[in-house]
Amino acid sequence: MKQYIKVDGWNIIEEGFVPHYNKISESIFSLGNGRMGQRANFEEAYSGETLQGNYVAGVYYPDKTRVGWWKNGYPEYFAKVLNAANWIGIGLTIDGEELDLHKATVTEFRRVLNMQDGYLQRSFTATLASGKQVKVTATRFCSIVDDETGAIRYSITPLNFEGTLQVTSYIDGDIKNQDANYDEKFWEEVSASVQHTSAYITLKTKKTGFQVCTGMQFNIYQDGQPVALQATPVQKEKYVGVTTSVKVARQLETVIYKYAANLSSENHPVQALVNNCEIAVSKAAAKGFEKMLTEQAAAWSLKWKESDIIIEGDPAAQQGIRFNIFQLNQTYTGEDARLNIGPKGFTGEKYGGSTYWDTEAYCIPFYLATAEPQVARNLLIYRHKQLGKAIENAAKLGFSNGAALYPMVTMNGEECHNEWEITFEEIHRNAAIAFAIFNYIRYTGDSAYLAEYGLDVLIGIARFWAQRVNWSEAKGQYVMLGVTGPNEYENNVNNNWYTSTMATWCLQYTIDALQQVKETAADRYAAIIQHTSFDADKEPEKWQHVIDNMYYPVDEQLGIFLQQDGYMDKEQILVKDIDPSQRPLNQKWSWDRILRSCYIKQADVLQGLYFLEDRYDMDTLRRNFDFYEPRTVHESSLSPCVHAILAAKLGDEKRAHEFYLRTSRLDLDDYNNDTEDGLHITSMAGTWMSVVEGFAGMRVRDGQLQFTPFLPGKWQSFAFNIRFRGRILKVKVSKDSVHIENRSIQDITVLIYGEALEVPAGATVTTKQGNLVN
Amino acid sequence: MKQYIKVDGWNIIEEGFVPHYNKISESIFSLGNGRMGQRANFEEAYSGETLQGNYVAGVYYPDKTRVGWWKNGYPEYFAKVLNAANWIGIGLTIDGEELDLHKATVTEFRRVLNMQDGYLQRSFTATLASGKQVKVTATRFCSIVDDETGAIRYSITPLNFEGTLQVTSYIDGDIKNQDANYDEKFWEEVSASVQHTSAYITLKTKKTGFQVCTGMQFNIYQDGQPVALQATPVQKEKYVGVTTSVKVARQLETVIYKYAANLSSENHPVQALVNNCEIAVSKAAAKGFEKMLTEQAAAWSLKWKESDIIIEGDPAAQQGIRFNIFQLNQTYTGEDARLNIGPKGFTGEKYGGSTYWDTEAYCIPFYLATAEPQVARNLLIYRHKQLGKAIENAAKLGFSNGAALYPMVTMNGEECHNEWEITFEEIHRNAAIAFAIFNYIRYTGDSAYLAEYGLDVLIGIARFWAQRVNWSEAKGQYVMLGVTGPNEYENNVNNNWYTSTMATWCLQYTIDALQQVKETAADRYAAIIQHTSFDADKEPEKWQHVIDNMYYPVDEQLGIFLQQDGYMDKEQILVKDIDPSQRPLNQKWSWDRILRSCYIKQADVLQGLYFLEDRYDMDTLRRNFDFYEPRTVHESSLSPCVHAILAAKLGDEKRAHEFYLRTSRLDLDDYNNDTEDGLHITSMAGTWMSVVEGFAGMRVRDGQLQFTPFLPGKWQSFAFNIRFRGRILKVKVSKDSVHIENRSIQDITVLIYGEALEVPAGATVTTKQGNLVN
Repeated sequence: MKQYIKVDGWNIIEEGFVPHYNKISESIFSLGNGRMGQRANFEEAYSGETLQGNYVAGVYYPDKTRVGWWKNGYPEYFAKVLNAANWIGIGLTIDGEELDLHKATVTEFRRVLNMQDGYLQRSFTATLASGKQVKVTATRFCSIVDDETGAIRYSITPLNFEGTLQVTSYIDGDIKNQDANYDEKFWEEVSASVQHTSAYITLKTKKTGFQVCTGMQFNIYQDGQPVALQATPVQKEKYVGVTTSVKVARQLETVIYKYAANLSSENHPVQALVNNCEIAVSKAAAKGFEKMLTEQAAAWSLKWKESDIIIEGDPAAQQGIRFNIFQLNQTYTGEDARLNIGPKGFTGEKYGGSTYWDTEAYCIPFYLATAEPQVARNLLIYRHKQLGKAIENAAKLGFSNGAALYPMVTMNGEECHNEWEITFEEIHRNAAIAFAIFNYIRYTGDSAYLAEYGLDVLIGIARFWAQRVNWSEAKGQYVMLGVTGPNEYENNVNNNWYTSTMATWCLQYTIDALQQVKETAADRYAAIIQHTSFDADKEPEKWQHVIDNMYYPVDEQLGIFLQQDGYMDKEQILVKDIDPSQRPLNQKWSWDRILRSCYIKQADVLQGLYFLEDRYDMDTLRRNFDFYEPRTVHESSLSPCVHAILAAKLGDEKRAHEFYLRTSRLDLDDYNNDTEDGLHITSMAGTWMSVVEGFAGMRVRDGQLQFTPFLPGKWQSFAFNIRFRGRILKVKVSKDSVHIENRSIQDITVLIYGEALEVPAGATVTTKQGNLVN
Repeated sequence: MKQYIKVDGWNIIEEGFVPHYNKISESIFSLGNGRMGQRANFEEAYSGETLQGNYVAGVYYPDKTRVGWWKNGYPEYFAKVLNAANWIGIGLTIDGEELDLHKATVTEFRRVLNMQDGYLQRSFTATLASGKQVKVTATRFCSIVDDETGAIRYSITPLNFEGTLQVTSYIDGDIKNQDANYDEKFWEEVSASVQHTSAYITLKTKKTGFQVCTGMQFNIYQDGQPVALQATPVQKEKYVGVTTSVKVARQLETVIYKYAANLSSENHPVQALVNNCEIAVSKAAAKGFEKMLTEQAAAWSLKWKESDIIIEGDPAAQQGIRFNIFQLNQTYTGEDARLNIGPKGFTGEKYGGSTYWDTEAYCIPFYLATAEPQVARNLLIYRHKQLGKAIENAAKLGFSNGAALYPMVTMNGEECHNEWEITFEEIHRNAAIAFAIFNYIRYTGDSAYLAEYGLDVLIGIARFWAQRVNWSEAKGQYVMLGVTGPNEYENNVNNNWYTSTMATWCLQYTIDALQQVKETAADRYAAIIQHTSFDADKEPEKWQHVIDNMYYPVDEQLGIFLQQDGYMDKEQILVKDIDPSQRPLNQKWSWDRILRSCYIKQADVLQGLYFLEDRYDMDTLRRNFDFYEPRTVHESSLSPCVHAILAAKLGDEKRAHEFYLRTSRLDLDDYNNDTEDGLHITSMAGTWMSVVEGFAGMRVRDGQLQFTPFLPGKWQSFAFNIRFRGRILKVKVSKDSVHIENRSIQDITVLIYGEALEVPAGATVTTKQGNLVN
């Protein structure tokens, strides 16, 4: 845990240069626009500790799997987010002396991520070994207006000398993934060209054959005027650049503008890549940095209007939640159904793959509420497109008849992960994908989605569950053996309550969905029955038999659902009684010790009580919460948000706030000492959920929006915007009152503390804060 | 499964050259002498498929662990048997054309492993591309008389030409382990020298710093006379050799004698290595090939006298059992307490490490009965020496107070393996090490071993078990959570009956051992109490509490012990009902499917009933055997022998014989399609057990040797030799009678079918074959 980031409502601020924090800051100050992104590396050379990272969405490499001991069924390849060409590079030499902050004395260093306008600015004064001093301000962004381009304004001013500044503006494509399994490079050069002050390079991924053309053009201004340049091309393997020199004088500002574009063969015909890249770069250069930045700020302003959360009375909380929302918006825009939300977004390469169950369990609610329905819908369609691969994946594990097992980690639908206890056994992910369909329809009312895409996926998932259980003669019930629940601190357990419960929920939802599609879209129903070879008599009958005869582990005496069959045999020592020197357990204890302990990594039974909350009464929730919460170590970033929401529901405002605090500044404060690898993007959606579903108690039931808000901690007020079925609402919770502003042209009735409240189009309605019902 | 080896009583014979089988034959025809060994590679060049392998006992390399996903507690390094310098190389060029069986037409190829005399002979006629024909006979062995030396007689005769034969006799130390985790080479050169017809090279292992000097000297004979040679040295990196040329004529035999030695810094001071190697090579050359071979045959004759099993009426069974005994004797001689029995011996490099629980569970009984007690004792002392490392190993997993967990795989006491479900959870290995102490003392009567070495080890093991169980409030008993039993097809299970049963057996045996040492060696007892900081009041009290309150899973209705808590929830489909195309499961099914199936890889509950047989009555054994045997797939080579012994005990002679057949020719017939990686050395001891403990029903009870023999299958008779407490007995079981010959100078009384039979010194006593008691 570190706390070097300055608190500010709209900006992330680092003051003073601490090389030791550089990799952490490179993560925190990352930029992205959903199409491409990058870590906050320096433009000029830096020989200190750094993790260079540039990423292009959808471009991956199937790195050969590395295992200690091969198990049948492991995937051969692990699709990795690719570290791509670095387009920000601006090498600077002052009278032959290179500017490198690792070798210079750095003062007045300040790094600012301006979240309101969507850019990164870094300024510093560097004193070189020779004693020469320069003042630098570098500003850059990845455009969300034209998501294939980016721009840099790099200003450098000699403070105590005059001389010659050599500038090399380059693109370096000789990049290696830090986490390459066999230390291989994944890119090869296709073509490269340099023309005066612009340069283009096209690189191709080995095996997958993705091509990415990266181009740049630069110019230099002094005294507000362009400088005529003598440009010398520099070409090396997978590297293109241009070198030029300008005279610089004391206090004379030299400004380098660099415009770049990244075009991928996913979006352009291969033969047009270079040409289209030239057009994109030229367009950006013609528009110019200042105009691009103005457009950027305007576009971000619109995004904030949709998704901002405003907290009064707690600046650190305000900064935390905005940072989370900013990074989520930088990672995924929902415009491209081929893309998904990687756990590190564009901020690092750890974990590989792009899609985890995080998307369905944590991110969908955020995008449902803060973006057009199309955004969440695209996330669902992403899985629909990968249904064939999910069926292949299940077949590899011995399942048949169109049973589908979605992968734990994927880029293209194929499983990437290779730990047997996760790859083969953490199958609850399948349920999250079905639940997301339910959740999407519940929220949007778009029940036509079922016929169009949803039912195909549900049938595949239901078939999997029906085959995955087996009849226990001993119990006279169906059991589910050998699974790993969301609590990855128990592996290969029997009858994980969450997995078994979600499995039968899936079966029931699929039966219901079949009925609904049959009734509302008979033709489509017939087509689905046919192309899935569905046995409409026997399959639902078997499913119903499983639903009716499923075994769920419970402890009757305690009145709780059990993690798994053997849970109560474990030594029950509460988390508060663990010697703090033993935490986090995953860094201190050997794996077997963790596995046989009662400690829970992340919400498991409670995750089920969250998803299926309407099935369970408050007493049941309270008993389970009171039992499991003291045993949960929250060593997954995805855990505290669910606990926050449930604590809020139980009226435990204090604990709800405590859980919230664990997530909202996780990366800003480097809570788990791992921010340097990249940000925890998907858990950021959980932070948003803590506020909206936790503190504001937002739910959708029977097509109606409901709230049971309260004000946590020292907050004076909090406000957020919600899209709901054509309405845009602003909800503000203050000390004494709840304001709902209907910014749309349709009236709406919402439930506040269980009481109906009409909010006419355009109106703001205020009601009393506090639980009006109980 | 292949069956290309010709059946013969004393020889392993391959006729005809099938390149596709070459790697299999390289394993089968391997040579070794306990100190060094090698695969049956060709002396001359071979560009076809081959796995070159030369190994020097005790010389290992700590290869950096490779994992897909790191788990806390994994060892950093994996100690590997090192593939060492190849000393057999004799390059041959005929008028400039290289002899290479991959490029020549090969006829009359015959490879013979002469087990009686302990050498390998290969003969063939090769027709080169030029049409030139040569006849070759190559004979070689690793000396068991001087276990640092080896010798080759390589005879080559032109059949249809005269010309020049260029001979390069070399040592190639530029060797890589095929299974190197990161494709590194593990050796570096220390020194090299070539003098006329001899050459020496000293190589050093990286990190571990073992030095091995390998030397050779050669000479050439024609017409029975030495040829005066013009020798040219050849030196490259990690390679030394000598090239010479001789004139050869049609039908004129040229014989190359090559003498080599491998000296390790484990056995010689580093500064004397080269000198001692020169002495060893010179001594061998002076003695000459023929004399060395005569001595070799004589030495093997002694070994056979001790350990041979003679089977009449079934030549394939005879060949199989001899092959197993031969390879066991080639692998381990028991002369060096630092060595142990690697699962592949000197025949391949797969698995790495040298020591598994195989040694204690399967090999000890073989060496107890067929060698001086010192041999088995040295295997026990090996573990005693590694007690400190076992305590460290347990500490890494969170155990304290001198608790010891012996590694699953090791070379030097440190754990090498890194699959969490095995490394951390297959802890039953600890019990096998305690049981081996019990077994050794039971067999030899050497109860003084307890005070000298045994008790220290037992205390460490008992402390581990007492900490590894935990009190279950739910059961009001001790439970053992998260283990993997011998049946590795169930991982991370709770309350594996075998592990729990052996754990409390260990506690009880340690309590008894403490008492015994206290009574018989009070000083030593006091010393042990002190250096182990043993709390003689509280520790045994806690152990007794565990013994008295341990939970063991049983099925009352079936009257069987349960594999583990959840076993009866599994779908119970018998092995005979599995589609044969699905076998072996470990090649056809994904790991999760195997784990949740009821199929047992190797004897587990039955292993316990074998070890602790006197605790259980025949009905209990029969119920468990009848339940588990039909669920066991025997996909471990260690499984069928235990089933054979128990089937024999139950009087099921037919099945006992069937199980025997599965093990005895496992490698000769390449039963599991994996012989090319090396032989299954440790399971060969199991084959011996099937005969002696199975068919002959040999047991030791109360210091008395007992037999309940029967004649399996079509066997006319079988006979074996047993050492027992100073006696050497030959037991022969014929159709109608059992003969016991006492070759020692001490009388003995044995039990045959429960009846006492006196066998005076020097006498042979015959009794009726058949169960005299029941």
